[in-house]
Parts: sequence; C-alpha cells; structure tokens
Amino acid sequence: MNHSPDLRLAVTLRLLDGEGQRRFGPGVAALLEEVREKRSLRAAAGSMGMAYSKAWRIVRAAEDALGYKLLSSTIGGRHGGGAALTAEAEALLGAYQALREEVSAYALQRFGEYFRDL
Amino acid sequence: MNHSPDLRLAVTLRLLDGEGQRRFGPGVAALLEEVREKRSLRAAAGSMGMAYSKAWRIVRAAEDALGYKLLSSTIGGRHGGGAALTAEAEALLGAYQALREEVSAYALQRFGEYFRDL
Repeated sequence: MNHSPDLRLAVTLRLLDGEGQRRFGPGVAALLEEVREKRSLRAAAGSMGMAYSKAWRIVRAAEDALGYKLLSSTIGGRHGGGAALTAEAEALLGAYQALREEVSAYALQRFGEYFRDL
Repeated sequence: MNHSPDLRLAVTLRLLDGEGQRRFGPGVAALLEEVREKRSLRAAAGSMGMAYSKAWRIVRAAEDALGYKLLSSTIGGRHGGGAALTAEAEALLGAYQALREEVSAYALQRFGEYFRDL
C-alpha cells in the first residue's frame, strides 16, 4: 500500500500564546518579508491579497505576544512614509526560517522511514 | 528582548499533493479518531462541528491521494450501519502520530536554541 510518490510532507511552525491563539507563523512571516521589500505595510498586505486591517492586526498581535516592535515607521516620501522591519523582526525572521528549514529536513528524513510502506 | 514565556511552539504536519493541495493533516486525523470512537462518519463529523459533506469530502480526497480506503462500511444496527477504520487507516494514523511526536520533540529542542534570545 505504498502512497502516491506525488505526496510530500509540509511542516508548519507557529507560536501560540497561553490560550492557544496563533501569534506568529507563516502568514506574519510572509507579510514581514513583503514589508521588507515594499517598505510599506499597506503595499505588503495588498500584494498578498490581505486586507490592511488584518495585516495591521496580525502584526500587532505578534508584537504584543513577543514583547517588542516588529515594524518601525519611516518618515517622508510622497505618501507620508512607510514601514521597515526592526532589528528584532529581522532576528526573529532569521531564527524562524532557520528553525523551519532544520525541522523540515529532519521531518522529511523521518517521514521516509515512517511512511515507507504507507 | 526575551519573548514571553507564555509562547509555545506548535508543529503541524500535512501531506500535500503535486498541486500543493492538502490531502492529509490534523483535521482528517482527528476525524478518523472520532470515527474510531463513534463508529460513524456522520457522528464523528457532528462531534467536531463539521458538516457531514465536508467530512466525506476530506476523507475521499485523502483516500484518492493515498491510493487506499480509510473507512469501511459496517452493516447492521438500527441506523443502517456505520463506519470503521481500515487496517491501512490505523497504520497511517499510527505513523502520523509517531512522526508528529518525534518532529515536535526535535523542533522544541531546536526552538529553545534559536529563540533563546528572541
């Protein structure tokens, strides 16, 4: 009963608070990466098809849980400034991505053993 | 900038098909566990607040991707029979849970190192 070779394992890592609410995961991480590129939370949200209000809310929820700011406002420009990642956000993103890669590699290896005959 | 000690890491494992569609993960696994207990897909879906049509659909999608049946019909009883897990479903659930526990333990250990100062 070998499974289809088409099937692959996907690993998702999230940070949950004491009530089990999602505070940081793939969505916020992708949003922060877009902010880094677009230098604007509104543009980042738009490029992901996410409402600006939701983008603002999930960034704020993560900041509240983590205890530090992820975005800093930048001043100037025609549109009244934008957003940049704080140093803490860069460190968080780096740690999250490294952890995700390491855990995914480990999971894939173990998956091959557990699911060899499934 | 130590993160709140309230935050904990959650690991989710899913099987995706060639198009990136979710075929097996926490939802189907929990549903199968309920079927094992309730001996009925309809009762299992109900206990999870899931529409029967959705329960049927996600089980079928998983079966199609895996290439084997997860549920077998049982005959008899006042309500015209129920459902049981196939041997393949039991093996799949066992492998999925063991993999999840092992990957979670590994992730937690690595999380402590990566996020010690975040």
